[in-house]
Amino acid sequence: MSQSPEHIEIQSVLLGNDTPLPLDCGTSISDFNMAYCTYGTLNAEKSNAILICHALTGDQFAASRQPVTGKNGWWEAMIGAGKVLDTDKYFIVCSNVLGGCMGTTGPKDIDPKTGEPYGLNFPIITIGDMVRAQARLQDYLEIDSWFSVIGGSMGGMQALQWASAYPERCFSAIPIACAPRHSAQNIAFHEVGRQAVMADPNWQGGDYYASENKPTSGLAVARMAAHVTYLSEAALHRKFGRNLQDRDNLTYGFDADFQVESYLRYQGINFVDRFDANSYLYITRAMDYFDLAQDHGGSLSKAFDNTKTRFCSVSFSSDWLFPTAENRDIVHALIAAAANVSFVEVETDKGHDAFLLETPELFKTVQGFLQSTAKSRGLTT
Amino acid sequence: MSQSPEHIEIQSVLLGNDTPLPLDCGTSISDFNMAYCTYGTLNAEKSNAILICHALTGDQFAASRQPVTGKNGWWEAMIGAGKVLDTDKYFIVCSNVLGGCMGTTGPKDIDPKTGEPYGLNFPIITIGDMVRAQARLQDYLEIDSWFSVIGGSMGGMQALQWASAYPERCFSAIPIACAPRHSAQNIAFHEVGRQAVMADPNWQGGDYYASENKPTSGLAVARMAAHVTYLSEAALHRKFGRNLQDRDNLTYGFDADFQVESYLRYQGINFVDRFDANSYLYITRAMDYFDLAQDHGGSLSKAFDNTKTRFCSVSFSSDWLFPTAENRDIVHALIAAAANVSFVEVETDKGHDAFLLETPELFKTVQGFLQSTAKSRGLTT
Repeated sequence: MSQSPEHIEIQSVLLGNDTPLPLDCGTSISDFNMAYCTYGTLNAEKSNAILICHALTGDQFAASRQPVTGKNGWWEAMIGAGKVLDTDKYFIVCSNVLGGCMGTTGPKDIDPKTGEPYGLNFPIITIGDMVRAQARLQDYLEIDSWFSVIGGSMGGMQALQWASAYPERCFSAIPIACAPRHSAQNIAFHEVGRQAVMADPNWQGGDYYASENKPTSGLAVARMAAHVTYLSEAALHRKFGRNLQDRDNLTYGFDADFQVESYLRYQGINFVDRFDANSYLYITRAMDYFDLAQDHGGSLSKAFDNTKTRFCSVSFSSDWLFPTAENRDIVHALIAAAANVSFVEVETDKGHDAFLLETPELFKTVQGFLQSTAKSRGLTT
Repeated sequence: MSQSPEHIEIQSVLLGNDTPLPLDCGTSISDFNMAYCTYGTLNAEKSNAILICHALTGDQFAASRQPVTGKNGWWEAMIGAGKVLDTDKYFIVCSNVLGGCMGTTGPKDIDPKTGEPYGLNFPIITIGDMVRAQARLQDYLEIDSWFSVIGGSMGGMQALQWASAYPERCFSAIPIACAPRHSAQNIAFHEVGRQAVMADPNWQGGDYYASENKPTSGLAVARMAAHVTYLSEAALHRKFGRNLQDRDNLTYGFDADFQVESYLRYQGINFVDRFDANSYLYITRAMDYFDLAQDHGGSLSKAFDNTKTRFCSVSFSSDWLFPTAENRDIVHALIAAAANVSFVEVETDKGHDAFLLETPELFKTVQGFLQSTAKSRGLTT
């Protein structure tokens, strides 16, 4: 039984046709599509809208059936009537990021200048560009200020960027399991993934859209490498340990002997059906480039100068991709900027992926924060 | 100036021609080559021989110029006159592992049955098989008992296997930065590497030796992914941080903008010149299969029952590939087996790679252990 909330709208809107969207790389993009889903109802004051920002391989189908995989939305645990992101109270918006591949304009779409897919002619985009595009969507929806902007991982980076770039359009922000800058180790892991894609001869310099063969092998390897980093050693040990796959004995070969191998292969193979390889390159690059302090003369607290936005920062104790220390850097900067901020490190052995899973302490934290912030906002539902 | 010790011998010997070497997979291998280097002089009592076991991508050139790369040996910091592994005192032996690609028989060598390279017809080998082959070399050298068997990472697994399988032929053992079993996370990382190799169309099911094109792209990706795991986040941060490559600004492209990217690419590209892709598959598989407790009815201490071998176990505080806790499992089992064991966790931020680097506390620990063990052995030099 699907537990999808009612009042779902899956939509797409063409933006930037009047005013092209300026990009951090120096160019601009006009006529870009923003694909988004909404859940719940916008109140008369337009004060109950929450923007959900998705992670690297996420999409706008946060609480809807993903059309390619047919699976439930990636945050159905959080979104719905009576849930933490309560569709009876809030109007939830989730849009596919710029550069993505689920309807928002990205490298697989047609470049109006050439009539061909962009491929690597798509401009390099940043987290700042993603948020700038979302601000256009906010304009389109005629919402002056989000009640909250929430997201985990790259979604958390967007929440931070929102609060920094548009403090007056963002009443509160909930950055989860993220960092104010992408670390050297994380850039390294992303580079491994990109090299895996680019090493696939079917990638063809990014110009594979007309080909029968897509760079699925390289993309699957990239996904596998990334997927290991989303889990903790403890979670992998608990889930799989050294358990063998459907067999009592080692096969003395290169088949997937261990359950963890077959799990990883499954992750890789399934990913390529729903994701574009070039989008993977662009979005990982956007994360690599993210460095809020660098954008503000080296001072992270300057990114949030005199902010009135209320913050709730959450980290997970076993997350080694975005460890608690990096999330704390955000909190320290916010405190230095005299911001209103609460911080919770959730104890869990589930690693970075915890933000996508049933994590009661995360739910409780976000729910509590939203309730008290709703009071400050004068939200009545 | 090369500081290579004198008395170097680079040799190769054909073994198993009289008695084929039985393998854990159930078959056996005859006429296999063991390529090895020796440093220093064997004493009259043949009691001063130390076996060095190399790691996944190591070789026998521990303290000699690597013939392909022209670089110094991988453990020159440890080996030499007056150094920790003192060539004035000890006779040092280092052999390329079975399944390797630097002279010891492996998948790139000719299968005498077919006259063609083995490729994937090479039998799956285990750490136990590697050690069994080294025992044949020990027989050939007419050494009854190694004064010590030492190695880091996969070399540490071999040291443990030696002490477990041949306690009477192994007076002491120094397993460094290893584990009694390969963890789920480490199997996962290995599987990513193997899938990267196998995804390369030039791999051709392992039958690429006659081809002009080798699976170098896939192998480079595998190496890059592995290399990230050898370093700590702190080491990467200290070494590279988010420093840009030869430029003041981001390029907004997919070139190596960050120094860490260009470093990784260099690691990948240089590796493929000296390593065979199939050997990479076989040796990672041998590590995956390693589980000393499983080989002894689930009890790790049974692997060392009544052992007289003296042990020195070393871990590194920032090693997340073989964390201290896994090294401690070895120590606890040895204590339960009433073995003579000392254990040191070296404080360093250099990660797993610390065993290959100038790590003074490692040197001091091994030197002290060897000196006291030399007394027990009645070694006079």
